[in-house]
Amino acid sequence: MERVGFLLKVKEKFINEYKEHHLDVWPKMKSALTKHGWKNYSLFMRSDGLMFGYFESTKSFSASLKGMSNEEINKEWHDLMSPYFEIPDGSAPDKSMIELEEVFHLD
Amino acid sequence: MERVGFLLKVKEKFINEYKEHHLDVWPKMKSALTKHGWKNYSLFMRSDGLMFGYFESTKSFSASLKGMSNEEINKEWHDLMSPYFEIPDGSAPDKSMIELEEVFHLD
Repeated sequence: MERVGFLLKVKEKFINEYKEHHLDVWPKMKSALTKHGWKNYSLFMRSDGLMFGYFESTKSFSASLKGMSNEEINKEWHDLMSPYFEIPDGSAPDKSMIELEEVFHLD
Repeated sequence: MERVGFLLKVKEKFINEYKEHHLDVWPKMKSALTKHGWKNYSLFMRSDGLMFGYFESTKSFSASLKGMSNEEINKEWHDLMSPYFEIPDGSAPDKSMIELEEVFHLD
């Protein structure tokens, strides 16, 4: 099993909207994540909008993203989310996630 | 069960040393964490030394830290780690962890 950690940044002015959307993520989006192996997936936020994501998968982070990138529902979700993120113009949220290195683990 | 996410910052010049110590965390330190309910605990690092911690516990973050704070081995470990962290003078690593808010979870 892989444990994946990544960072992403939400614009401060959109923090509340972003959080509201995540109280009610579309069931089809959740099903797609499950189908592509995203398990025990949590998103955490610092007060300035810095986001940390954690999930467990049988695949690498890049393979997990690739599976999702072929799903139409993922494109629709990211079209909705893109304006909320601090990402370079023309990029997509799933291209702007910074993967972190796991330096310690205790079961 | 609580899922806890927190941030901490390692000084860039000490990144390699910090990582080496975490390849070989003292067994007594790991036992103390387990005794105080820290499960599935991972530390992730960004290339500049920003650290993200994730663990699962039956207790809150503050209660999990409090349990550890009474362990002599935790004091010894933190005495060793303190110089590596960007923390205010006179503070301790376990007082400088910023707890993050969980904004989404998918089992």
